[in-house]
Amino acid sequence: MSKQNRRAEVLVAGGGLAGFCAALSAAEAGAEVTLIEKASSYGGSTVQSGGGFAFAGTEAQKALGVEDSVDLLRADLMKCGNGKNDPDLTDVYVERQLDAYEWLQRHGVEFGPVTLASSMSVPRAHSVDPRQMMEALRKRISQVQRIAYRTECAAQRIRPGRSHDDPVTVAVCAKDGPFEFCVTSGVVIATGGFTQSEELIDRYAPHLRAALRGGGEANTGDGFLMGLALGADHRDVGYLKGTFGFSLNSYLGTARDDRPILIVSMYDGSIIVNRAAKRFVNESISYKEIGEACLKQPEAVGFQILDGRIMAMSKPVPNPCNYDLAEKNGLMVRADTLAELAERLRIDPQIFEQTVVRYNDDIRAGIDTEFGRASLSGNFGVPPTIEKPPFYGYPCATALIASYCGLAVDRAMRLVNPYGEHIPRVFAAGEVVGGFHGQDYSSGSALGKAAIFGRLAGGNAAATTRAK
Amino acid sequence: MSKQNRRAEVLVAGGGLAGFCAALSAAEAGAEVTLIEKASSYGGSTVQSGGGFAFAGTEAQKALGVEDSVDLLRADLMKCGNGKNDPDLTDVYVERQLDAYEWLQRHGVEFGPVTLASSMSVPRAHSVDPRQMMEALRKRISQVQRIAYRTECAAQRIRPGRSHDDPVTVAVCAKDGPFEFCVTSGVVIATGGFTQSEELIDRYAPHLRAALRGGGEANTGDGFLMGLALGADHRDVGYLKGTFGFSLNSYLGTARDDRPILIVSMYDGSIIVNRAAKRFVNESISYKEIGEACLKQPEAVGFQILDGRIMAMSKPVPNPCNYDLAEKNGLMVRADTLAELAERLRIDPQIFEQTVVRYNDDIRAGIDTEFGRASLSGNFGVPPTIEKPPFYGYPCATALIASYCGLAVDRAMRLVNPYGEHIPRVFAAGEVVGGFHGQDYSSGSALGKAAIFGRLAGGNAAATTRAK
Repeated sequence: MSKQNRRAEVLVAGGGLAGFCAALSAAEAGAEVTLIEKASSYGGSTVQSGGGFAFAGTEAQKALGVEDSVDLLRADLMKCGNGKNDPDLTDVYVERQLDAYEWLQRHGVEFGPVTLASSMSVPRAHSVDPRQMMEALRKRISQVQRIAYRTECAAQRIRPGRSHDDPVTVAVCAKDGPFEFCVTSGVVIATGGFTQSEELIDRYAPHLRAALRGGGEANTGDGFLMGLALGADHRDVGYLKGTFGFSLNSYLGTARDDRPILIVSMYDGSIIVNRAAKRFVNESISYKEIGEACLKQPEAVGFQILDGRIMAMSKPVPNPCNYDLAEKNGLMVRADTLAELAERLRIDPQIFEQTVVRYNDDIRAGIDTEFGRASLSGNFGVPPTIEKPPFYGYPCATALIASYCGLAVDRAMRLVNPYGEHIPRVFAAGEVVGGFHGQDYSSGSALGKAAIFGRLAGGNAAATTRAK
Repeated sequence: MSKQNRRAEVLVAGGGLAGFCAALSAAEAGAEVTLIEKASSYGGSTVQSGGGFAFAGTEAQKALGVEDSVDLLRADLMKCGNGKNDPDLTDVYVERQLDAYEWLQRHGVEFGPVTLASSMSVPRAHSVDPRQMMEALRKRISQVQRIAYRTECAAQRIRPGRSHDDPVTVAVCAKDGPFEFCVTSGVVIATGGFTQSEELIDRYAPHLRAALRGGGEANTGDGFLMGLALGADHRDVGYLKGTFGFSLNSYLGTARDDRPILIVSMYDGSIIVNRAAKRFVNESISYKEIGEACLKQPEAVGFQILDGRIMAMSKPVPNPCNYDLAEKNGLMVRADTLAELAERLRIDPQIFEQTVVRYNDDIRAGIDTEFGRASLSGNFGVPPTIEKPPFYGYPCATALIASYCGLAVDRAMRLVNPYGEHIPRVFAAGEVVGGFHGQDYSSGSALGKAAIFGRLAGGNAAATTRAK
């Protein structure tokens, strides 16, 4: 077969969780599958995730005495998305989630404790080690003869056939140059989001220009653009948001690695100051909103300021409250006085002391005259003064960790145009799919979506009548 | 010819300025043209506009002693767009603007005074009466036999041919039912923006949900969606912004018509309060930013509060400073005391008086303790106290008056996909085109773009090799 015209029944683009599930499911449905990954290693955004799946009604929950249901899961998802979620995709998720849970276990994925996470009415975050999960699935893929897998091979264009009966062509760029696949059943776009694309962030969320970026390094929106060029519609692009509290690992010069972590000590009582050593926000509001405010500060930097009393509330779980570990890893600095802390944070000590003194006076008087902080979080708790040495400072910023929005698909994971008509032989799954999350992301739904939609897309691609 | 298969060499969809210029230019290039308009009357957003064209180097400017140039115009456009404008489209505009100016005059458009408007280094807003302009062009169209014009006929879908040589099909919905056009040279999408589409505003700018809507009533984004379905890319959708100061004509019950007008008295010193009778913003910031703040207030309403001293600064030009006229037209209410004014505005009189007293005390002390207002606008001027009766209140809100963003086109006004490849036989012009304005709209560039790009799109559609 010439290099210019390789054939595949199913081509899956992207080696994250969605792509792996799609490739395995397509092969299980009997198709000859080619799985390609742009980067030199697999895992994409998946291996950067916290490792939680939102599943409802599992044995693991029952063992804990947790009563959960498909209806409660659906209601929680819709509530978190503020009703802006696509109800069809929400249905697909809740109908197929238990099956995906069992399928993942059968394929060697090891599940740990079930915990409560944000936007959940009951504990339903089923934890995994994302690396163990991807290694287990990778091992399965290597055992399936019908799957050919190659890395450093990026899908670049999908060209439709002249009619529904014709194969589609996928142009790829590989280590050894460009070539094309003639795909006779279906293509699955599982290339992830676009957190690494300056152009697309600028297009949809220019206010996030200064945000740190998470997500897979190869997540430059290739699949999203391929879909647009085919006439696919897009969803949820107006809901891109940053999250406040990601470490600036280079700031202190003491970090033990370059992996940003999330610390959220405000809700235990810390204040946040900017590089001018001044507060800039009511620290009790959501860390998404604080994220917006932080982006408008000098250099888009904020410092969480803790005293000894807040530090004593450090706990290993959830991770964002593990202040001890942040200090141990060189991401948080300690000092005996406020002035010394300011020096170490390279902010003005005099102004910093004035800021803290004014805040403490306000808190004692029962009214935050600057920003109206009246609680720890929401309407809960009373903010403490910041006065018990030692003091701690944590330089951090707003990060965009996933794009969540993306291409429009129908219940079968087929790309659809603005009129809801599907685009022949082209499917999508995982982070590149838009419309499922709605206005806000709820914990555990990104990995869940990758597995559930990936399985469905792969199976349906395999089941599509072969082109002549 | 059957109803199902009418033919046109050039089909122009949209009867605003861009569509009229496209139809006339296509006919002047020798094509048989069909011009269709969705609404029952022509004019779209054009007839709602302020009637200014940004042209540089005209005789009218020279007569005023204004030195202007293509380079200065280009620099002003790029500066206003914060460099996010498509440089190719900016070049097309500046290269063709003088020709468009002369062409409009030859076609009966009467130009009035040249004035200075926002984002202009020199006076270059060439004023027209938008209705006179559209009537003059409509008259020309009726004199050209090669143009068939029909209203209440909406383009709904554009289907590409199987190859570049084939005609494209345009499905339309007319008074007497749906039918299709077989278009042998080219289609021009000149259907306007999408300010009237809840779905598209929600998609790209959910924060503008509560904003008033301007623009043509038929501007529901039909052409934008047709372009997306063809695989066209889109531009500038992250820059949608509202403008503060549009009258709430139904609020007082005294309005003489239902046309919202823009009043901006803050920069002469007025304050703005919300329905809780409290200030909510530093009134010296840009009216775009005040617009964002107003959308977060109860019912998304703001009241501009003037005293007799500010009222005395009313002037007929520019329109947003014509406070007298706003009062005459029943859009602004007057009272002898603050309490009486509050009653008429249906806000709490006690809280309102406290708000004004505190503000006046702050201004006298030289520091606005609530929102840090230190000037009239930008760094200019000293804010006065609000104390000289009578007092005036103007209920207003944030409005989205045009979408500005839209479909990606190349220098020839052909739709292009995310890879910059053009979509055969499909052109766009006017408000539906994205990429030209960049981050912000500069005065006079929307009408200018409609005329210049419309002429170019129509001419190029006519010049496209006929399909077989």
